[in-house]
Amino acid sequence: MEWKHKHLLTIEQLSKEDIEYILETAVSFKEISVRSVKKVPTLRGKTIVNFFCEPSTRTRMSFELAAKRLSADMLNVVSSSSSLSKGESLKDTARNIEAMKVDMIIIRHSMPGSAQLLADCVSCSVINAGDGPHEHPTQGLLDAYTIKEKKGRIQGLKVLIVGDIAHSRVARSNIWTLKKLGADVTVVGPSTLIPAEIEKMGVNVSYYLDEEIPKADVINILRIQRERQDRNFFPTLREYIQLFGVSEARLKNAKKDLLIMHPGPANRGVEIDPAVADGPYSVILDQVTNGIAVRMAVLYLVSSVGSSKKVKMKS
Amino acid sequence: MEWKHKHLLTIEQLSKEDIEYILETAVSFKEISVRSVKKVPTLRGKTIVNFFCEPSTRTRMSFELAAKRLSADMLNVVSSSSSLSKGESLKDTARNIEAMKVDMIIIRHSMPGSAQLLADCVSCSVINAGDGPHEHPTQGLLDAYTIKEKKGRIQGLKVLIVGDIAHSRVARSNIWTLKKLGADVTVVGPSTLIPAEIEKMGVNVSYYLDEEIPKADVINILRIQRERQDRNFFPTLREYIQLFGVSEARLKNAKKDLLIMHPGPANRGVEIDPAVADGPYSVILDQVTNGIAVRMAVLYLVSSVGSSKKVKMKS
Amino acid sequence: MEWKHKHLLTIEQLSKEDIEYILETAVSFKEISVRSVKKVPTLRGKTIVNFFCEPSTRTRMSFELAAKRLSADMLNVVSSSSSLSKGESLKDTARNIEAMKVDMIIIRHSMPGSAQLLADCVSCSVINAGDGPHEHPTQGLLDAYTIKEKKGRIQGLKVLIVGDIAHSRVARSNIWTLKKLGADVTVVGPSTLIPAEIEKMGVNVSYYLDEEIPKADVINILRIQRERQDRNFFPTLREYIQLFGVSEARLKNAKKDLLIMHPGPANRGVEIDPAVADGPYSVILDQVTNGIAVRMAVLYLVSSVGSSKKVKMKS
Repeated sequence: MEWKHKHLLTIEQLSKEDIEYILETAVSFKEISVRSVKKVPTLRGKTIVNFFCEPSTRTRMSFELAAKRLSADMLNVVSSSSSLSKGESLKDTARNIEAMKVDMIIIRHSMPGSAQLLADCVSCSVINAGDGPHEHPTQGLLDAYTIKEKKGRIQGLKVLIVGDIAHSRVARSNIWTLKKLGADVTVVGPSTLIPAEIEKMGVNVSYYLDEEIPKADVINILRIQRERQDRNFFPTLREYIQLFGVSEARLKNAKKDLLIMHPGPANRGVEIDPAVADGPYSVILDQVTNGIAVRMAVLYLVSSVGSSKKVKMKS
Repeated sequence: MEWKHKHLLTIEQLSKEDIEYILETAVSFKEISVRSVKKVPTLRGKTIVNFFCEPSTRTRMSFELAAKRLSADMLNVVSSSSSLSKGESLKDTARNIEAMKVDMIIIRHSMPGSAQLLADCVSCSVINAGDGPHEHPTQGLLDAYTIKEKKGRIQGLKVLIVGDIAHSRVARSNIWTLKKLGADVTVVGPSTLIPAEIEKMGVNVSYYLDEEIPKADVINILRIQRERQDRNFFPTLREYIQLFGVSEARLKNAKKDLLIMHPGPANRGVEIDPAVADGPYSVILDQVTNGIAVRMAVLYLVSSVGSSKKVKMKS
Repeated sequence: MEWKHKHLLTIEQLSKEDIEYILETAVSFKEISVRSVKKVPTLRGKTIVNFFCEPSTRTRMSFELAAKRLSADMLNVVSSSSSLSKGESLKDTARNIEAMKVDMIIIRHSMPGSAQLLADCVSCSVINAGDGPHEHPTQGLLDAYTIKEKKGRIQGLKVLIVGDIAHSRVARSNIWTLKKLGADVTVVGPSTLIPAEIEKMGVNVSYYLDEEIPKADVINILRIQRERQDRNFFPTLREYIQLFGVSEARLKNAKKDLLIMHPGPANRGVEIDPAVADGPYSVILDQVTNGIAVRMAVLYLVSSVGSSKKVKMKS
């Protein structure tokens, strides 16, 4: 298969084959990060800009390390979504960055569609690192990578996604990825946090976590964003914990090979109990490790299309 | 010609030959940024500090990319002009940076003369990236580079510089550069924003933009700094736009090969209309691209004097 | 001697031989920073994270330059001690950083013991860049390096440490280092700023600076942290300056080969007079220069234990 996407904007736009190709490519990159010399010359002389208009430590770091381990030159540009809230100013800034002859812009911005907007107005490659509640494709990919690594397959697995489905780009990118790969996905949360027509994405809906746990192969627990709580999507944090907080007690009927996932950073004691986050089912730190491999694969593949000449794979 | 300046502090101090030599050197560096591998080993093992005491994204990025494409090690140090407002504390900080055996300090600071102050107290090279309203030499150089690239010459061209001449380091560095290269420069703006004795710099003064436009080969539009507007240099923004905002309508009698320039970031709809910024006369993004080439040339030339041993030119 | 410490957490834990070995190793690294090409491939492909939870420019820069001159990949992560005030959240963040397969975490945090806490929960190497008032081991080492470089020895020298001993990690790391190397250390300051049982560390205590100066070979002057002054450890700044501020007049009976040291950034005119900071006894800028050599040595030595394979020494 030959990779043909110049950008990575959404999982929705990818085919099953595209996704599988990224995951396979990531396998070969994962090994680099455990070498003594964690560096290959693959993207030497390429310029990649981390253009983050929302605060982020982990995702920004993960992309930066992925770029550096591929020997690219990485520049961090931090702005605020608010100062670039109008599409015009965002486009203007992006065109200026592009005029510096960068090869790739990795963008995080609070506006859904911001990555697509950029891709439409610049000639370099664009990678979506989260566009508001819309998508966060590399998170969907690294979650799928982690499941496949641990379970050997994704087809037919029962995956729960628990929490604030309505506002979660992680949920959306996970649903697209897992459905395309044949998983059976159920979203679980309070009715106020589940979007009206979510079934159209091919998922099941449940409001009762305890009923779903015994059937689950994977539980992906979303972060509760307390800053959204001024809009009262649920009565109290205490009630949320009681109904949807994942505790050891709640897992007593779980499958023995259950995987517990969380995109981080976790509110320990809220959506996930510390004993679960650090417990035997947890693959949370594997997700972090795999994030680098998946992002190295994405940078590599996208770069092979973005530039006129093909880049050589790692030596 | 052999380059002999250890620092780049002002354009005023440079000769016509110096300026031409930088522009010629930049030609050979421009090509590097469009290669597949945008990197040469010219400054490998050199340490360059971006010491920015005023907020900046574009200039800082441009210097950082210039340094990285020359393989130098670049360190960003962000401070505030206010915390380093006294010359003593600025000198103290600079001497500490120098004691880390850096080869070059690129400084932006709100105090006129701050770059010179640094050059007087450290033994490494100093590059002025903007010292208050005084000078911004690399901007003057990149503007000249862009004009020459597009027009084939600078000698004899009629250049308008429009806006807040009084507070603009861009205006001052442009005037010095263009006058030394033989251009015919006219500054245009409200009388409150044109310094009293500006004619001594060899420029013409006009308060009527519409009269000047038909004669112009180049219009360089300065950014209106709204934060200065508490001192009421002009009655209202609306009146400013009416008299000095560059719109399509206003350009109807312009020469067909007019160049529209802006140092960025533009206030679209204020000093420049979006249709003009993105229109056929605009070379604004070329300025951004050329900024990297000019800064690579400056880093290269200055470095060849600053260090005891000559550095080799790009391979 | 073979280096066997995977971490550098405190000077207290090191033997005299360990300290001497670091200082000897630093000698060979010092020369790299004055080369034309200030870079060796020693740590190429290693990932080092500068994890700073307190504001710092100098120490952060010094570690970053040390890492870059050894060709390591360096990532800056800035957080606030307050957002990571609970040990749990600090551990969680550290484990996430570690999961990105980094080789070393350099941590600065306001909590005493934070570096040890990290070392206990991650498998990579940890370097303490200051843990509250507890220790700042590389400062102790670079101060010892500077004394030895200037005096040829440390054994038997009389060293004064002047100022806020109670809250100073610099004081503590200096005392441990110098006592282990055989110096005669006297702490000097107002009684409110000298901890009750400090003599147990083997130092002399004095409240009268003028009595001690004529006997001193070295005076290490601590920074007065004005932000602590709300707790009124001394009546007024003016009184502090009168009793403990090091001025030229106060040094009139000093030995001719006295060394004046300060960890920076100095409050010029408070604990140290500008004429003394820039005067003939001052080795303050040597401390800054030596900081890089000592930190290169520490990164190199620690890395040789942290990774399974030995790294090669500089070429």
